[in-house]
Amino acid sequence: MQTVLAEVITIGDELLIGQVVDTNSAWIGEQLSGAGIRVKQITSVSDDKAHILAALAEAKNRVDIILITGGLGPTKDDITKHTLCEYFNTTLIPHPEIEEHIRHLFVSRFKREPSEVNLRQADLPANCTPLKNNVGTAAGMWFEQDGKIFISMPGVPYEMKDIVENEALPRLKQRFELPVIIHKTFLTQGYGESMIAEIIEAWEDALPKHMKLAYLPSPGAVRLRISAIGDNADVLQQEVEAQGVQLEALLGTKIYGYGKETLESVIGNMLRKRKATLSIAESCTGGNISHHITLVPGSSDYFIGSVVSYDNAVKINQLGVNAADLAYGGAGAVSETVAIQMAEGVKKLLGTDYAISVTGIAGPTSDNTSKPVGLVWIAVAGPEGTKAKEFMLKDIRERFVSRATLTALNMLRYYLLADN
Amino acid sequence: MQTVLAEVITIGDELLIGQVVDTNSAWIGEQLSGAGIRVKQITSVSDDKAHILAALAEAKNRVDIILITGGLGPTKDDITKHTLCEYFNTTLIPHPEIEEHIRHLFVSRFKREPSEVNLRQADLPANCTPLKNNVGTAAGMWFEQDGKIFISMPGVPYEMKDIVENEALPRLKQRFELPVIIHKTFLTQGYGESMIAEIIEAWEDALPKHMKLAYLPSPGAVRLRISAIGDNADVLQQEVEAQGVQLEALLGTKIYGYGKETLESVIGNMLRKRKATLSIAESCTGGNISHHITLVPGSSDYFIGSVVSYDNAVKINQLGVNAADLAYGGAGAVSETVAIQMAEGVKKLLGTDYAISVTGIAGPTSDNTSKPVGLVWIAVAGPEGTKAKEFMLKDIRERFVSRATLTALNMLRYYLLADN
Repeated sequence: MQTVLAEVITIGDELLIGQVVDTNSAWIGEQLSGAGIRVKQITSVSDDKAHILAALAEAKNRVDIILITGGLGPTKDDITKHTLCEYFNTTLIPHPEIEEHIRHLFVSRFKREPSEVNLRQADLPANCTPLKNNVGTAAGMWFEQDGKIFISMPGVPYEMKDIVENEALPRLKQRFELPVIIHKTFLTQGYGESMIAEIIEAWEDALPKHMKLAYLPSPGAVRLRISAIGDNADVLQQEVEAQGVQLEALLGTKIYGYGKETLESVIGNMLRKRKATLSIAESCTGGNISHHITLVPGSSDYFIGSVVSYDNAVKINQLGVNAADLAYGGAGAVSETVAIQMAEGVKKLLGTDYAISVTGIAGPTSDNTSKPVGLVWIAVAGPEGTKAKEFMLKDIRERFVSRATLTALNMLRYYLLADN
Repeated sequence: MQTVLAEVITIGDELLIGQVVDTNSAWIGEQLSGAGIRVKQITSVSDDKAHILAALAEAKNRVDIILITGGLGPTKDDITKHTLCEYFNTTLIPHPEIEEHIRHLFVSRFKREPSEVNLRQADLPANCTPLKNNVGTAAGMWFEQDGKIFISMPGVPYEMKDIVENEALPRLKQRFELPVIIHKTFLTQGYGESMIAEIIEAWEDALPKHMKLAYLPSPGAVRLRISAIGDNADVLQQEVEAQGVQLEALLGTKIYGYGKETLESVIGNMLRKRKATLSIAESCTGGNISHHITLVPGSSDYFIGSVVSYDNAVKINQLGVNAADLAYGGAGAVSETVAIQMAEGVKKLLGTDYAISVTGIAGPTSDNTSKPVGLVWIAVAGPEGTKAKEFMLKDIRERFVSRATLTALNMLRYYLLADN
């Protein structure tokens, strides 16, 4: 068994000047490492022939497989194809089957004839094997030289993904004998990286050498990934599971899920299991909790709807919040009493079993009270009564909303855990 | 004037196996190119000493400034500091002023004493100048060797940003005499890259050599960026503006804004100017339009609230949609008549001047009608009556929601443009 190394080269000035975030290489990295191919490096270079040629030469010295994305669009900054011709000392030749595919895509999907610019995308380097792009007009290309594989793909994410899944990965699996890497990821919310590190320190230090733990923090959440590398998938899987049991014993309900799960999918499963329904009253989160809940396919099984009560009048007229509590001298919009009334109000209005409410001060400026930016009150109403809790999540506006959303979802999870 | 080149090296296995998307290097790229420093390459490498050392040596041959992020956390996979010691042939020494800062941060912000692990973050390579991190415990580090600058920063985005803005960039501007790069970005929604390319082809071909156009597509939108490089900011600014006037003449109202604007901020300004209010009825977008509207600071000036009517009962009871239209044999939830009733219903319910409604089939499966996944009806209600339009936005669920959101916001923009 060989260790097969790959490098991802992403091409585009827009990546270097920061107008576009490169999400392609992370996705490719995930696919390759899941298949036992180790991504050694990701390199982003400009739309510049000399620079691309240098990056290709360097990557060829480092790795076995080079995946290239970008620079295959129909617009003026297209460059990759011409550079690959120079690298492999060849020329572009028309590929009639690709031209046919482009015509077909245009007529069936875009309901018009392709332009000359579009049709020229069927011209590919003479030494490549075209890789079919089912969802776009820029074909992928597979090259071999001195035992190394070069795969060039468009930069549009869903086109690149189509080619990796249906063409590139199946061919790579045939071509190389790959080692086995098993991952398991544990998801936590509401605890910082160093707090978790202290809890699990002794366990982590005792991990065997072929196993590794990684901390993957994001706003409001930390993911913990155990990996094991070897050659026997069953043995590795058992080792990962056994270590996972120990990790879970240390972290308990701090772990809300695994792998690709999300708080909203975990909650969705809990609600579906008890055939219960959910509604939401959102103020400072402005609809983001509902947005997350409804990103889960099938969420219509339990999610009924929401009221985004940004203006106090909506809190009073739709949710039945007491006007005196909102008025000058009252508890104010960001308070325990208003959070409770919002949750109970939307639960009653939309007739659901459970309800969440969130009211807080997103910033950058406070409301006309003395309350600080970042203050949030969250309430959960359900069969066991209404629970409310205060949080301080001071952050930039977008992160504040995202952290308040996760915090509210996790509070509903704890309510559902307690309420069996 | 010299052309100053930089490379960003991001460190972390989590980037290579795709568990985390590298957003840091795009942000750094934007800051540097705004300051006239050209980012030549972005390189992501593993948490591996030999690999980091190789990347540093290669980058030193390519560029003048090397910015490193990642590998400075308090957890076990910390590695950058030790590698930098080896690279510069030095050792870690305690920095009492950094230790003091860590203690202060813990006591004032986290309300507890730092652990020994936290305090060890004050040990830094002997040859570095510490760069203060105002918002976290991992200090930045500035090194000089053979006329090249090395800047190491933590990977946590807001900590890295604090160090770049307050420490790294001001020092780089002092250290180098930088060229001038002027950018202007034009924002469009609803037209594909190749369609726009055809409209502006002749203009683009005629651009002078020191100016460049880049297409920056994202789901549902294409940004067009004109750049000019030279040494006189006023002259370049005038040239960019003059070319921009020509571009606008070609694209007209297809352009909704500039630079950092968003559809929601543009609409917000239009509504604020006419002292008008907005409400939203969302079905398939599940709260995402409201979320976007409320990401704009000050949106409470015009945004009153929303009803997320995921379940048909909410459409009937809260929005006043006719039950017969939703029932079997009626027009169905995804129809012109229901979209119109939803927009008019929420406008009346929340007493606003304008309202948007969206109803569609997000997929992956259709509702129990014969309507296709991706079908969306959007309506805008306002003083000039209600306008409804049908769209086909078939895509993966998340992108469908995002495209439907942009499409609805843009439809409101066109309504507001017509209704002067």
